[in-house]
Amino acid sequence: MKRGFGSDNHSGVSPEIIEAINNANHDHALAYGDDEWTERLNHLFQDTFGPNARPYLVFNGTGANVLNIDAMCRSHHAVICAETAHINVDECGAPQRIVGCKLLTVDTPDGKLSPSLVQKQMHGFGFEHHSQPRAISITQSTELGTLYSIDEIKALADMAHHHNMYLHMDGARLANAAVALGCTMKAMTSDAGVDCLSFGGTKNGMLMGEAAVLLNPELDIDIKYRRKQMGQLCSKMRFMAAQFEAYLTSGVWKRNAAHSNHMAQLLYNELRNVDGIKIMYPVQVNSVFAQLPRQVWQALQKEYFFYDWDEEMDVVRWMCSFDTTEDDVHQFVAALKRLM
Amino acid sequence: MKRGFGSDNHSGVSPEIIEAINNANHDHALAYGDDEWTERLNHLFQDTFGPNARPYLVFNGTGANVLNIDAMCRSHHAVICAETAHINVDECGAPQRIVGCKLLTVDTPDGKLSPSLVQKQMHGFGFEHHSQPRAISITQSTELGTLYSIDEIKALADMAHHHNMYLHMDGARLANAAVALGCTMKAMTSDAGVDCLSFGGTKNGMLMGEAAVLLNPELDIDIKYRRKQMGQLCSKMRFMAAQFEAYLTSGVWKRNAAHSNHMAQLLYNELRNVDGIKIMYPVQVNSVFAQLPRQVWQALQKEYFFYDWDEEMDVVRWMCSFDTTEDDVHQFVAALKRLM
Amino acid sequence: MKRGFGSDNHSGVSPEIIEAINNANHDHALAYGDDEWTERLNHLFQDTFGPNARPYLVFNGTGANVLNIDAMCRSHHAVICAETAHINVDECGAPQRIVGCKLLTVDTPDGKLSPSLVQKQMHGFGFEHHSQPRAISITQSTELGTLYSIDEIKALADMAHHHNMYLHMDGARLANAAVALGCTMKAMTSDAGVDCLSFGGTKNGMLMGEAAVLLNPELDIDIKYRRKQMGQLCSKMRFMAAQFEAYLTSGVWKRNAAHSNHMAQLLYNELRNVDGIKIMYPVQVNSVFAQLPRQVWQALQKEYFFYDWDEEMDVVRWMCSFDTTEDDVHQFVAALKRLM
Amino acid sequence: MKRGFGSDNHSGVSPEIIEAINNANHDHALAYGDDEWTERLNHLFQDTFGPNARPYLVFNGTGANVLNIDAMCRSHHAVICAETAHINVDECGAPQRIVGCKLLTVDTPDGKLSPSLVQKQMHGFGFEHHSQPRAISITQSTELGTLYSIDEIKALADMAHHHNMYLHMDGARLANAAVALGCTMKAMTSDAGVDCLSFGGTKNGMLMGEAAVLLNPELDIDIKYRRKQMGQLCSKMRFMAAQFEAYLTSGVWKRNAAHSNHMAQLLYNELRNVDGIKIMYPVQVNSVFAQLPRQVWQALQKEYFFYDWDEEMDVVRWMCSFDTTEDDVHQFVAALKRLM
Repeated sequence: MKRGFGSDNHSGVSPEIIEAINNANHDHALAYGDDEWTERLNHLFQDTFGPNARPYLVFNGTGANVLNIDAMCRSHHAVICAETAHINVDECGAPQRIVGCKLLTVDTPDGKLSPSLVQKQMHGFGFEHHSQPRAISITQSTELGTLYSIDEIKALADMAHHHNMYLHMDGARLANAAVALGCTMKAMTSDAGVDCLSFGGTKNGMLMGEAAVLLNPELDIDIKYRRKQMGQLCSKMRFMAAQFEAYLTSGVWKRNAAHSNHMAQLLYNELRNVDGIKIMYPVQVNSVFAQLPRQVWQALQKEYFFYDWDEEMDVVRWMCSFDTTEDDVHQFVAALKRLM
Repeated sequence: MKRGFGSDNHSGVSPEIIEAINNANHDHALAYGDDEWTERLNHLFQDTFGPNARPYLVFNGTGANVLNIDAMCRSHHAVICAETAHINVDECGAPQRIVGCKLLTVDTPDGKLSPSLVQKQMHGFGFEHHSQPRAISITQSTELGTLYSIDEIKALADMAHHHNMYLHMDGARLANAAVALGCTMKAMTSDAGVDCLSFGGTKNGMLMGEAAVLLNPELDIDIKYRRKQMGQLCSKMRFMAAQFEAYLTSGVWKRNAAHSNHMAQLLYNELRNVDGIKIMYPVQVNSVFAQLPRQVWQALQKEYFFYDWDEEMDVVRWMCSFDTTEDDVHQFVAALKRLM
Repeated sequence: MKRGFGSDNHSGVSPEIIEAINNANHDHALAYGDDEWTERLNHLFQDTFGPNARPYLVFNGTGANVLNIDAMCRSHHAVICAETAHINVDECGAPQRIVGCKLLTVDTPDGKLSPSLVQKQMHGFGFEHHSQPRAISITQSTELGTLYSIDEIKALADMAHHHNMYLHMDGARLANAAVALGCTMKAMTSDAGVDCLSFGGTKNGMLMGEAAVLLNPELDIDIKYRRKQMGQLCSKMRFMAAQFEAYLTSGVWKRNAAHSNHMAQLLYNELRNVDGIKIMYPVQVNSVFAQLPRQVWQALQKEYFFYDWDEEMDVVRWMCSFDTTEDDVHQFVAALKRLM
Repeated sequence: MKRGFGSDNHSGVSPEIIEAINNANHDHALAYGDDEWTERLNHLFQDTFGPNARPYLVFNGTGANVLNIDAMCRSHHAVICAETAHINVDECGAPQRIVGCKLLTVDTPDGKLSPSLVQKQMHGFGFEHHSQPRAISITQSTELGTLYSIDEIKALADMAHHHNMYLHMDGARLANAAVALGCTMKAMTSDAGVDCLSFGGTKNGMLMGEAAVLLNPELDIDIKYRRKQMGQLCSKMRFMAAQFEAYLTSGVWKRNAAHSNHMAQLLYNELRNVDGIKIMYPVQVNSVFAQLPRQVWQALQKEYFFYDWDEEMDVVRWMCSFDTTEDDVHQFVAALKRLM
C-alpha cells in the first residue's frame, strides 16, 4: 500500500530498529526479560526518565495503559480522563474488564485536561456508593495532536498528589511531544510529577513494543505477576529490549519524531489558507485534524486511506509518520486541491 | 549466553523468519490485521487446519489460551485440564482473572488426560453451586514431552461433544507433535474434533507470535472485540503475519521441529544407559526429563542454565531447540558424565 | 430516629410483609429457591409481568441490575444510560467490576433518555476498538423522580431492538411509577418491549428483596449459575419469596406507592409557592428536588437528615416513604418555613 | 415440608431472631449501616472476637468469603484450601470471578488442612509464572463435620504468618464449633491468629445474615467500597444487625448450636452399631456422614430429602438443625432401620 496519512502505525520499521533485531539474533538468551538486553535497558530507562524509573516492557499501548492503571487502582477506584482519551474510546473497554475500575470522563475543547476540568469529577470521596477517584490520566501528545506544557503537567500532578491520587501519562507519542516542546522526556515525566508512564515505541518506528514505566516507587508492587497474568510478558524479550535500546541510544526516537512533526507542519502550511478547509486544533506534533466538505474527503478516501474523526462534523484526521516524505505531502495536497 | 538446554524459547529466530520480517518492511500497510499479509495468512491457516479455521493472531501463548477459553466459556464454566497444564501452572492464574472461570484439574501420570481421568471432574451438571464443566483442555505435545495419538484426541473430543462441551488444544509445540506423529497438523486438530487451538510459533523459531485458531464456527462470536480488550491486538500486524506465512510456507516449521526432536533423541540415547540417571517419560518430542543425583544437577547448573522440574524429586528438564547442534549435545553429555 | 425525608429506604417494613415472614416460619423448606413460596411466586410474576417473565430473586438493587446486565452483555459490550442512572453513579462501579463492560452515559435534562439522546452513543458498531453498544438502560421512575410514558418506553425499546440491542429497566421504584401512570406494571414493561427488569421491593415496604426479571426468553441462559457466583443466591429463600408474595397479592405494593406519591404531592403543594424555593423537576412520584438557600437547607439538616443532591447548585432531595404521615409533611414544612 | 436432615438451612428462624426483627421495625433509620443497631453491633463484635474485630455485614456466606478473599488478595494471589472447601466446591467459582485469584487445593482425609498438607502448595514464591500463595483458608467446623483444635489453628496461623500470608476462617458453622470445643469464639479466631473470619448466622437460626470480620487491621483497607461494589451492602441494615444482636446477646447462638450438635450425637449413637452403616468421620458437630447400601439411602430419600455426598461411594450427609427434635431423630432412624 502506498504511503499515506492514515496512521503512524501504518508505517514500517526504522532501519536502525531492524538492525538491532538482527544483531540480537545470536546464541541463547534467558527468556522473559532475564537477558542482558533487558538488563541494559533498565539502566537506560533510568538514564532517560530518572533514577526511580522502573520499566515493564509490554506488547502494545493497551497493555501499557492497563498495567499502569492496575498498578494505581483497585476495582473500586476511578481514573479521571478526557472523553477523547485512548483508554476511554479506543481500547474496547479494556480498563473496565481487566482492572474492573471506572473511568470518569470530562469533555474538553482540545483533548487536554486542566485542574478546573478535572475538578468536575472530584467528588464522592469517602462515599461508598461512588467509585473513588484515584488517578488522573493524560495523553502527551494528546489524541487530538495537542500538547501539555510542562507547567500544565505539573499543575495536574500537584492536584493529583494533593488528593492522594496519581498522575498517569499515556505517552504513545511521547517522543513527538518531547521534540515539539524542545525538552527531555524526563522533564515532561518524572520531573513534572508523573507517577507512571505508558511509553510508546511502535508509532515512531519500532516494530513492536511499549513500556509501562513506573516512576513513583510506591506503585512498584507485584507488577511482574500482573504483567504475566494479563498476557503481556514477552518470552523472547531480548528482541523487544534490543529495539528500545536502539531507539533510545541511536537518536532514532528524536529523528523520527522530529521528521513526522515536520511533515505535519508542512501539511498544515500547505492547507491552512485553502478555502473550505478548517484546521481544528493547533498542529503541534504529527497530526492534522481538518474540517472540509464531505464530498471532498470522501472522494479523497478513494485515493488515500484515512479516518474520518467525526463523520457528522466532517472532521478527518491526517497523520504523518517517520517515513512520510515531502513528496508524499505535496502529492496528497495536490490530490486534495484537485478535489476541492 | 552459550546455547544450552534451558528452554526452546531461549533460542533466537530462524533466518527464514527474520528474512520475512525484513521483506515485509516496505511502504505502508493498514494496522490491526487489515493488511495483505494477514489476509493471505487467513487462507493459509485454512489450508493448514481445514476450511473452518479462523485464526486470531495474538502476542503469546497465554494470550492464545485465554482468548480460546474466553471463546468457549463464561465465568460460571470450568475447564478440565491436567494438573501439569500450562494454563494451570504457568500463566499466573490468567484464565481465572481474565475469564473468571475455574480450572478443574486432574492428576496424570504423564501429562495426558484420558476419558477416564476426565470423568473424575464430570459432575455437578445443572447444579448451580458448581462451576459447570464446559471444556476439556489438552496440550499437544504435553508439558512433559509426551504425545497424544490421534485416536486419543478423538476419544476426548467425542467425550466433550457428547456432553455439549468443547475440546481445546494448547499447541505451543504442535509442530513438534506433528513431526513426531508423522501426520499433518490438520489430522491432529480439525480432523480429530478439536474445537479450538492455541497454535504456537515462538518456541519453534519465530520471533514472536501465536494464534488462537477457532476450528468450530460456533465459537467465532465477537472474538475480535475481546482480543482487543485483552490487549492482544497487534498494531503492525503484518510483521506477525509475515512470520507465520514464512513459517508455514517455507517448511521451516517442520525442519525446525524435526531437528529439535532429533536432538532430544540424541540426548536421550546418550543418557539412557548412564547409571544414576532415570529418564522419567517417553522422549517423544524435544524434551528430556531426568532424575539424577542432586549434587550432579546442581553442579551442572553452574555450567548450563536449566530448570529443576521437581526439586524434591530431583527431576530436571532439558529442552532442545531448533538451533541445538549435535556438538551442543555431546558437550553437555560430556559435562554431565564428568560430574556423575 | 424520627421519620424524615432522607430516603425511602429509611423506613421500616410494612405490617403485611412482616406478617408474611412470620407466617412462612414453620417447618423445613428446601433452600435456594426450591421451596413452595418461590414456586408460587414464579407464577405470580408471570401474572404480573406476562407469561415470559422469569424472576431471579436477589438481595438488592445492585444485585438485580448487575445480574440483568450480565444476562445482556459480555465484557466487550456497553450499556447506554443517563449520566444520573443509579448503575452509573450509585453502585461504586459494580457493572464494570462484575460484568467488565462499559457504561456509555448521556447528559439529560431530567434523568430521562430519549432516542435522540441515545443516538449520541450509537456509533462504533463493528469497530473492534470500541465497546459495542448492547443495551439501553432506563430507570422507571427515574432517579430524579420523573416518569417515562409508556410511549416513551416503547420508542426506546424499538430503537434498541432495531439495533439488535436490549432495553433494561431499573424498576427500584416501579410501583410508584405504575401508580402514577395509572397503568399495570406489565403495561410499562413486557407490553412496552422491556427485555429485562430490576424489580424493587425494599424501597416500598419490604424488608429486603429485589428481583432480576427476564422478560425476553433469549436472555434466560445460565443465569442461575451467575446469580450464585455473584453471591446473590439466598439460602432461606422462602422468606424473600414470602415477602414478594404478600407484596403482590395483598395490594400493599399499590397502597404504599400511592401513599408515598401522595405525600410527595402534599409536600410539593406546600412548597411550590414559597419564595426562595425552586422545585427542579416535575413531582411525579415520591420525591421532591428543590433548590433553596444554602443556609436554609444546611440549618434544616440539623433537624432532619436528607441528602444534598448537588451541593454546588444548592439542590436537595426530599423523599417520601410508605410510612410518611401528613403530620410529618406539615411539621417538615413548618420547620423549613421557619428557617427561610 | 416436614423437618428432616437435608441441611441446617432448611430450618426456619429462631423465635428470638424474629422478635428482634419485629422490635427493630419502628420509625426511620439511616440506611447502609449508619443506624444505631449496626453501631451497637460493631461493639458487640469487638466484645466477641477481640478489640481489633471489624465486621462488615453481608447477605450470605459466599459474600463473606469473597469479601474476605478480596481483602487478602489481588488477582495474582492464590488461596490454599482443602479440596472439599465450600469456596472451592460450592460457590460456583465466585472467588475466581469476583477476585480473579486462584485456589490451590489439597486433598485431605477429613476436610482439615495441616501444615504438612499446606506445604504441598507452598512453592513458586517470587516466580512470576505462578500464582503467589497469599492465604490459607480453613473451615471451622469443616464441610465434613470435623473440627480443628485451637492448637491446630494456631499452627496454620503461624505457618501463614511466617510466609507473610494470612489465615482465613470460613465460620459458617462457627457456633457449632465453639460449643463442641467448649471454648469462646474469640479463642478459636483472634486468639489463635486468624486474620479474617466469615461468621455465619443463617445456618444456626438467623433469617439471613453473615459477616466478613476482619481481625487483622492491615486488611481493613477500603473494604466498604468493595462490599458495595459486590452487591453485598444491605440498605435496611438495621434488620440484619438486629438479628445478629439478638443472636449474640440472647444466648441463642449457643443454645441452637448445642442443640443441633446434640441431635447429631443422638443420631450417631442410634446408628453407630447398625450393621451395614459406616460412619465416615468423627461426629463432632451437627452432621453425620454415612456410607450405606444404595437401595437403602435411595429408598429413604423418598421419605426424607437429603444429599448424597459421594454418589459413587454411597456416602450421604445428614444434617441436624436448631429445630430438630428427638422425635425427628427417632422417626428417621426407625425409617432407616425399616429399610435396611
